[in-house]
Amino acid sequence: MELKQQGSESLIELQQSLLESYNEYKESGLSLDLTRGKPSAAQLDLSNNLDGILNKKFTLQDGTDVRNYGGITGIPDARKLGGEMLGMDPQQVMVGGNSSLTLMYQYIAFALLHGVEGKESSWKSQADKSGSPVRFLCPVPGYDRHFTICEHFGIEMINIDFTDAGPDMDQIEAQVAADPMIKGIWCVPKYSNPTGHVYSANVVKRMAGLGKIAGDQFRIMWDNAYSVHYLNDQPADLTNVYSEAVNLGTEGSIIITGSTSKVTYAGSGIAFLCASSSNLEAFQKYLSAASIGPDKINQERHVRFLKDINGILAHMASHQAILKPKFDLVQEILFNNLHNKNMGEWTVPTGGYFVSFETLPGLAKDVVRLAEEAGVKLTPAGATYPYSQDHSNRNIRLAPTFPELHELEKAMNVFVLCVQLASVNQAITASTPETSD
Amino acid sequence: MELKQQGSESLIELQQSLLESYNEYKESGLSLDLTRGKPSAAQLDLSNNLDGILNKKFTLQDGTDVRNYGGITGIPDARKLGGEMLGMDPQQVMVGGNSSLTLMYQYIAFALLHGVEGKESSWKSQADKSGSPVRFLCPVPGYDRHFTICEHFGIEMINIDFTDAGPDMDQIEAQVAADPMIKGIWCVPKYSNPTGHVYSANVVKRMAGLGKIAGDQFRIMWDNAYSVHYLNDQPADLTNVYSEAVNLGTEGSIIITGSTSKVTYAGSGIAFLCASSSNLEAFQKYLSAASIGPDKINQERHVRFLKDINGILAHMASHQAILKPKFDLVQEILFNNLHNKNMGEWTVPTGGYFVSFETLPGLAKDVVRLAEEAGVKLTPAGATYPYSQDHSNRNIRLAPTFPELHELEKAMNVFVLCVQLASVNQAITASTPETSD
Repeated sequence: MELKQQGSESLIELQQSLLESYNEYKESGLSLDLTRGKPSAAQLDLSNNLDGILNKKFTLQDGTDVRNYGGITGIPDARKLGGEMLGMDPQQVMVGGNSSLTLMYQYIAFALLHGVEGKESSWKSQADKSGSPVRFLCPVPGYDRHFTICEHFGIEMINIDFTDAGPDMDQIEAQVAADPMIKGIWCVPKYSNPTGHVYSANVVKRMAGLGKIAGDQFRIMWDNAYSVHYLNDQPADLTNVYSEAVNLGTEGSIIITGSTSKVTYAGSGIAFLCASSSNLEAFQKYLSAASIGPDKINQERHVRFLKDINGILAHMASHQAILKPKFDLVQEILFNNLHNKNMGEWTVPTGGYFVSFETLPGLAKDVVRLAEEAGVKLTPAGATYPYSQDHSNRNIRLAPTFPELHELEKAMNVFVLCVQLASVNQAITASTPETSD
Repeated sequence: MELKQQGSESLIELQQSLLESYNEYKESGLSLDLTRGKPSAAQLDLSNNLDGILNKKFTLQDGTDVRNYGGITGIPDARKLGGEMLGMDPQQVMVGGNSSLTLMYQYIAFALLHGVEGKESSWKSQADKSGSPVRFLCPVPGYDRHFTICEHFGIEMINIDFTDAGPDMDQIEAQVAADPMIKGIWCVPKYSNPTGHVYSANVVKRMAGLGKIAGDQFRIMWDNAYSVHYLNDQPADLTNVYSEAVNLGTEGSIIITGSTSKVTYAGSGIAFLCASSSNLEAFQKYLSAASIGPDKINQERHVRFLKDINGILAHMASHQAILKPKFDLVQEILFNNLHNKNMGEWTVPTGGYFVSFETLPGLAKDVVRLAEEAGVKLTPAGATYPYSQDHSNRNIRLAPTFPELHELEKAMNVFVLCVQLASVNQAITASTPETSD
C-alpha cells in the first residue's frame, strides 16, 4: 500500500516501529562506509603477483631500459595492452601514470589554456573573444570528479538527462548546435557511474556525429573506466565510438580514457589516453614540459601480469566472483524492503561499481543524514550532479564494492530503514494540516 | 703558447693535423651520447631489489592499504624518508609520483593561474592588473627544464650571473626590490646543474631573506635535486634554507623539491615537495582535482629499500664508486688536452651529474656541431640558458654518467679535439685580413 493512502494513525504507528529499529542500529555503534568506488582488499589481493614479476629483467625488445628516463608515449606493449582493453589500435594509445583522472585533467588544461591547435584555438581565448564562458555538457547523475575538474577550471556545466539508451541525444545535439561555446561532454559510456547505463549503438553513433555539428575544438571525454568490469556472464557490447568517428571523419573530437585502477591496484595501476594521431602528438608535446615520462617499470609489470585481453578478462572474472554476491545482496535487500512500496527506485547494473538510488522527491539529503547518524556513511546527496546541485534532491549513489559482505548487509539494512523512515516522515508532514501562528 | 700568438702558417699546420684526427673519428662511425643526465645501467642495477621487496605486505602501521586509492600527502614513512634526505621535518614534506619536475610544474601552474592564497593572489591576475608579465630570475647557466616550464607558461625569464659562492645575490636583491612582478627564482643549490656550485652559507641566508624584500607571492623554487649525490669523500654542507627562513619568518617563500630519480630508478622513483604547512595545504587542495593520490606502493618500496638517511648515503656511495672514475676520466682528458691552451675553461664538480665547459667566446655551437658530425651528441649549445640564448655562445654541458667508461673516453677525446679544432679555425679566421670585393 502506498504511504499517501494510509491514514495518519497508521503512519505514526509505522514511524514508531521504524524508529525503534533505527535507534537500535544507532546505539550499536556502527561505522560503515558506502561512499567511494574502491576495490576491496580481496580484489586487491588478486594482483599481488605484480610486485616482483619482473624478475630483474628490465630491457624491452626495442632496447629500452624501463628503469631510465623518457618515453612519454608509454612502452609499446603497454600501448598494445591498453588498445586491447579499450578497442583501439596501439598507435592511438598513450600510457601514462597511475591515474586516468590525471590524464583527463591534463587534457582539459591543455585544450582550455594552451589550445589543441595552438594558443588561438584555446577554449579560453575563444571565451575571452566571445564574452561567454566555456561550457561542458554533463549527463546526470554522473561522476563527481568530472564535475570537479570543470569547476576547478571555471567551465560552466549544463545538465543532460538520461534516457534508457544513454544520454538524451536530442538535448545534446540541440545544445551543441545552438551554442558554440559548448566545448565538450563527459561520458562514461559503459556501466556508467552511477547509473550503470551502457550507451546504445545509436547513442554512440550520434555521439560520434557531434563533431559534425560542433566546432573543431569540441571534445567528447569518453571515460571508458569500466570497459571490462562486468557483473553478468560477459561484458556488455559497446559500439566503438572511435571507429564510428573515423567513418564520419570526426575522430579528432574523441578522447578516450581508461585505466587498470579497478583491474589491478587502485592507486598503482596504469592509465591510458587514446586519440587521433594529431591529438596525441599535440597533447604529448604539451605534456613534455611537465614530465620526465611515466613509470615504465610499472607499465612493464602490467604487461607481464595481464598479458592481453584474454588475460584481462580472466582476471576480471575473479573480480566478478567477489563482486557479484555483493551486488546481488544489495538488490535482494532493496527488493525485500522497498519493492512496490513507492519509496524509491534503483538501478540493476550489469557491470561497474555502483547502484543508483532515487528517493522520493526531496528526501536524498534526509536519507544520507539519517544513515550517517546511524553510523553508515553514504556519498553526499547531490555529489552526482554538477555543483552538487541535485534539484530534485533524489539521487544517492551506493558503492557496494569495498565493505565485506557482512558489513554491506548491515549497511544496506540501515539504508533501507532510513529510506523508509524518511519517506514516512515526509508522508506524516504532508498529511498534517499546516498550522499558522 | 696561446693561439693568437702563433703565426698563421703554424696555425694551418695545427689545423691540418687536428682535421686528420677528426676525420679518422668521423669515419669510424661513432654513435655516442653525452646529452642528458641519465644514470647508467650499472647504477640502475643498484636498485634491482626494489621490485619484489614488499613480500605481499601492503598494510601500514596506521592501517592504510597502500594498494588502494587516496593519500595525496604520501605515506608517513615516505614523508620521513624525504625529510631525512632533504633536511626537513616530515610534516613539511609531501610525496608525489615519479617526478619532482612534475611537482614543480604543478606548483608553478598553481601559483600562476590559481593563486597561492586564492584567485586574487594569482601571479596571472597581478600581471593582468599591472600590465607587466610575470617574471622569474634564472641563475645561468642552469637547468633547461626549469626554463621550459617558464616558457610554457609565458613567464619572462631574467638571467642572473653566478659568483663562486652561488648566484649573484646583489643582482638578485636589486632586481627583486625593483620589480614586484618578479615572482620567483629557480635554484639548484647543491652541485648545481650544470656548474656544480654549492651555494655558500651566506648565499643561502640571503636567499632566505628575499621573502622580506619580495611580496607574499614570491617563491624560491629550491630544486635540491642532488642533495646526496656526492663525488668526494662525503656530501658537501648546504645550509638549510628552510631553517634560515623560519628564523626570518619567510618560510612561506620556500618551495623545496627533490626525488630519488638519481638514487633508485630514473623513471620510477618517488618525488618530494617540502613547504610550509599553509603552502602544502593550499597546494594539495589544488592538486586534489587532478589526482587520485600518488603510487603509494612505490613509496612503500622505497621506504623498505632505502630505510633512512644512512641507507640513502650507503646507497649513494655505490653510485659514487661507479661515477667517480667517469668524472675523473673527463677531468683527465680535459686537463691533458686543454690545460694552459686557452681554448676553454671547465668546472671540477664535487657532486652532481655534470661538467660545465666554457669555450672561447662564440664557439659553443661550432663545437657541438663538429662533435655531432663525428658521431658524438652533446647537449645543444644554449640549452643551459633561458630561451636557449647563450649570448656569448660559450657554455656546453657535459653529462658523463650514462656512457660506459670506454665510450666516455672516446666521446671526450672527440670533444677535446672539436674544441681544439673550433678554436684553431677561429684563430685562423681572425688572423686572416678581411678582403673586400
